[in-house]
Amino acid sequence: MAALKTVVLKLGGELVHSPELDLLADDLRSLAGGSNRVALVHGGGPQASALQKTLGLETKMIAGRRFTDAATLDVMKYVVGGQLNFDLCARLLSHGVRAVGLHGASGHVIHATKRPPKVMQGAGPDPVDLGLVGDVRSFNLSLLEDLFRLGYVPVLACLGCDEKGQALNINGDTVASQLAGALRADALVLVTSTPGVLRDVKDPSSRIPRICRPEFDRLCADGTISGGMIPKLQESFDVLSHGAKSVVIVGKLAAGELTRAVLEPGSAGTVLVP
Amino acid sequence: MAALKTVVLKLGGELVHSPELDLLADDLRSLAGGSNRVALVHGGGPQASALQKTLGLETKMIAGRRFTDAATLDVMKYVVGGQLNFDLCARLLSHGVRAVGLHGASGHVIHATKRPPKVMQGAGPDPVDLGLVGDVRSFNLSLLEDLFRLGYVPVLACLGCDEKGQALNINGDTVASQLAGALRADALVLVTSTPGVLRDVKDPSSRIPRICRPEFDRLCADGTISGGMIPKLQESFDVLSHGAKSVVIVGKLAAGELTRAVLEPGSAGTVLVP
Repeated sequence: MAALKTVVLKLGGELVHSPELDLLADDLRSLAGGSNRVALVHGGGPQASALQKTLGLETKMIAGRRFTDAATLDVMKYVVGGQLNFDLCARLLSHGVRAVGLHGASGHVIHATKRPPKVMQGAGPDPVDLGLVGDVRSFNLSLLEDLFRLGYVPVLACLGCDEKGQALNINGDTVASQLAGALRADALVLVTSTPGVLRDVKDPSSRIPRICRPEFDRLCADGTISGGMIPKLQESFDVLSHGAKSVVIVGKLAAGELTRAVLEPGSAGTVLVP
Repeated sequence: MAALKTVVLKLGGELVHSPELDLLADDLRSLAGGSNRVALVHGGGPQASALQKTLGLETKMIAGRRFTDAATLDVMKYVVGGQLNFDLCARLLSHGVRAVGLHGASGHVIHATKRPPKVMQGAGPDPVDLGLVGDVRSFNLSLLEDLFRLGYVPVLACLGCDEKGQALNINGDTVASQLAGALRADALVLVTSTPGVLRDVKDPSSRIPRICRPEFDRLCADGTISGGMIPKLQESFDVLSHGAKSVVIVGKLAAGELTRAVLEPGSAGTVLVP
């Protein structure tokens, strides 16, 4: 019998109402049903921006970065904490996944602190205050461990909460990466629009099954990996130095692909290892 | 030592951002800290209506009742499932209450079914379809019991979820009453704008500490209880036939009032018993 795995899956908000979620849900059921520990983290930026527009709220940019004021934060609570978390859990439940929707203030599962004003690259010499934006301080791992033990799949909306009860906007990728580190996850799974890292971006069959750090440097040097893919993978390799054992990049999911990618690393998607 | 109590507290959405919540939160901390089992249910009708108006959505009425279409339901997810559940939990956490925010699709904690079209009093002979409105089918009591055992206070947004993952709008009072019944709660606590049931509505000191069913009938007959109070209390007495052991009506909360009302029934508010 294979050892039990701890898996953190990051889903973009755009997947919540997509037909692919049905395949993903069936995969998650087999994965979590086998006593593996599975947690999901989702964002919802695009849907939040759309509602913000409908509400006639302006997007305030400071030094090229989005500023989170109280009204923007409410929209994040509406969309990410409310609608998307509900709809995602509801669809997972209907496929037999024992999803438990949580936001950062559910048992303080995402304990955050407001990001202090920081000097930012390309934004001049003055520190930039992005408003109600948070950095993860800690997770309520004890609550998550209890939910795993009880056979549930925690589904976290990426909204943090500070000591005083202030909600804080946090990037979903960051929450997923840090959670994977904190849980010493066997895999942080990122769902992308390609079936993994490709030698030839136009050829889906040119998937690279496994990349270790030295191999990554070689692939960058010889131009196989180029452009926007470099910082993306760079970021994923950074995750590996914070506790997670691997990062798995999978594409638009075919049936069983997620399970294979996690349980037989390399057989689907691309697995990044130190 | 007093026996441990199971308490379900219904909060109107209007309390979430009110200064009184601070007093309530301190009370809840002592109540839940003593290993009593405490669950909260909240609605958010007024705030949802306000956002609906901002979004320019029409309120569709059928036979004098509000119809829940998909757009209305999304607003409920935004406000009740998202903003209010987050803000309520966040404020409770900041007072040391170990609140865990959940919606109906969190572990299917509120399993609902769509209400079939029904002939309704005063709405003619034809069955009325209120749209995406649900009736509680069951609660995930096992999840709630586990959270109690782990020392958490579940905070339920009154949104149900059916078998197929369809969200359903449910009345918060109904969810709270039925949950109190399902948990065989010692008390269903309703927070109102008066300090309990009063002999003289203009005199807060005329509080009636305890009313049993025969006494209620007497107080109605002699006119002490009249008008809109009659159906309200009637409904509360009905709760007592569905498993809850008492209904406690408390008013705008003074410090310690909730704890007293629950642990020493009759010492604050009004307790209704069979």
